[in-house]
Amino acid sequence: MMKDIAGMQIPTYDDVVAAHARIAPHIHRTPVLTSRMLNDLTGAELFFKCENFQKAGAFKARGASNAVFGLSDAGAANGVATHSSGNHGSCLSFAAGRRGIPCTVVMPRTAPQAKKDAVRGYGARVVECEPSTSSREAVFAEVVAETGAEFVHPYNDPRVIAGQGTCARELIDEVEGLDAVIAPIGGGGMVSGTCLTLSALAPSMKIYAAEPEQADDAMRSFRAGHIIADDAPETVADGLKVPLKELTWHFVKTYVTDILTASDPEIVEAMKLIWKRMKIVMEPSSAVPLATILKNPETFRGKRVGVIVTGGNVDLDRLPWMTR
Amino acid sequence: MMKDIAGMQIPTYDDVVAAHARIAPHIHRTPVLTSRMLNDLTGAELFFKCENFQKAGAFKARGASNAVFGLSDAGAANGVATHSSGNHGSCLSFAAGRRGIPCTVVMPRTAPQAKKDAVRGYGARVVECEPSTSSREAVFAEVVAETGAEFVHPYNDPRVIAGQGTCARELIDEVEGLDAVIAPIGGGGMVSGTCLTLSALAPSMKIYAAEPEQADDAMRSFRAGHIIADDAPETVADGLKVPLKELTWHFVKTYVTDILTASDPEIVEAMKLIWKRMKIVMEPSSAVPLATILKNPETFRGKRVGVIVTGGNVDLDRLPWMTR
Repeated sequence: MMKDIAGMQIPTYDDVVAAHARIAPHIHRTPVLTSRMLNDLTGAELFFKCENFQKAGAFKARGASNAVFGLSDAGAANGVATHSSGNHGSCLSFAAGRRGIPCTVVMPRTAPQAKKDAVRGYGARVVECEPSTSSREAVFAEVVAETGAEFVHPYNDPRVIAGQGTCARELIDEVEGLDAVIAPIGGGGMVSGTCLTLSALAPSMKIYAAEPEQADDAMRSFRAGHIIADDAPETVADGLKVPLKELTWHFVKTYVTDILTASDPEIVEAMKLIWKRMKIVMEPSSAVPLATILKNPETFRGKRVGVIVTGGNVDLDRLPWMTR
Repeated sequence: MMKDIAGMQIPTYDDVVAAHARIAPHIHRTPVLTSRMLNDLTGAELFFKCENFQKAGAFKARGASNAVFGLSDAGAANGVATHSSGNHGSCLSFAAGRRGIPCTVVMPRTAPQAKKDAVRGYGARVVECEPSTSSREAVFAEVVAETGAEFVHPYNDPRVIAGQGTCARELIDEVEGLDAVIAPIGGGGMVSGTCLTLSALAPSMKIYAAEPEQADDAMRSFRAGHIIADDAPETVADGLKVPLKELTWHFVKTYVTDILTASDPEIVEAMKLIWKRMKIVMEPSSAVPLATILKNPETFRGKRVGVIVTGGNVDLDRLPWMTR
């Protein structure tokens, strides 16, 4: 079903449909919440797709489950492995645990303790690296050589992107007449899955990506017309530090309407606003879309906007407003 | 419809049904959430009725709306007034704001700033008193003399109790075969409303009240067979400091199965556990039921238990685990 373009295996909407059937027994169909106060504040109608309530606390349970449960028994025999700044690691561990196969996750030693604990809690193994893309890739190569595990990349993988596309499929099934969808962008897995689904089901719907100013490589890539990658940017939105790769860049450059950015203080304010008004726990990365909506009111005013809340795995002892 | 018993106007289940019809346009039908991890931990099946997602962030929007919208135009002309350690004040302000009548709330000067801000945010007036029952009642008498406002007591009021009873009505409509329901107890409004509904619809269902050890006057009253009131107890569960009154005592002594207590550290641990695992923001008072379930596993193991999450209004800058 996948299309081969310039040597890449590009997933199609049929892959999203197949993924949805495959992962349905393992994931939650998450709720869509609204807030009259946030609608009043933004002048838009916002529909929050709450993947913070997803299994393992993040949308990445979708893509990881699709990859793990799509493996043949032979392909699964040596287990799976990945590198991840957090949620993909725990979500792959969750999926591997459900299938009963081994899983190894290479994580920066600086990753939140809660995320390391989550990986180990699902029975997977953590191998630490330095907090840079280069170190992560080097350590990971050793792990794969040692275990023979199947590599499931956090986002540059057609199985993962097809899995993430199930989120937008549920959203537009639940909410009619959306004008736009906005999601955070790090490596671009969720945005790519969203593009894949919406380009098939609702091609006129606008797709926005929201990015921290302090890790704005996707926005600069989008403006420049080619991938720009930074090594080890620092932002409170710790899930969004990784760069685009070939496959996600394909979707971003082809389907994304615009990439908007917000500063770290704006992200923290938006996060507190959602906690306070919507009574949901979500991580800083998930607040970037609301921060950019508040910063660009003219873009969203009067529109019906789907907002993807990507995850809820935050260290409650190290909330960003505690240390400021 | 109310029964007159020993000089008290006791609401009946018909009043709950009437309240539900009256307040339906103004409140949320809140979701019931479950957590496999918390079920595994307790050995029970827990069904969390999430009044933290209620209008104004607490179940008290139900009773306050029933009182406000049940007033005749003449009865509403001078507005409403109350004293409240927090949520009843903001919820009465919310209801008065929706009806467009004035509202005055007497609050302890030590009440969380977030709760004072909420009252003012709904357009009501805050009058401060000392943090004791005696001071609160004295200051309140002055307010009523000055305004002629209709007093809506936070819990010792049949209209309020009938309104709170709509919560258990929704819960047992949504979840079949519950063995028990557990709710926090302060003044006893939610517990009384729960008793009112369940004694009519499911008289064999057990009803537990959960109370902080450091404000355990309801438990001591229950054991002694008469109301015991403390002046100004201190606990992290700041919504549960007030004593029982005649009307709530009637329901507690007649229908409650048992009153269980938990220490402040146990309450904070249960609160963090819910935030971390269920990704919902709820206040310390709402964590008391889970704390007592964890402390009394033999009482709940194997049972289907409705857990009323009473509210989500917490000061994010003063979370209880920040100051320890």
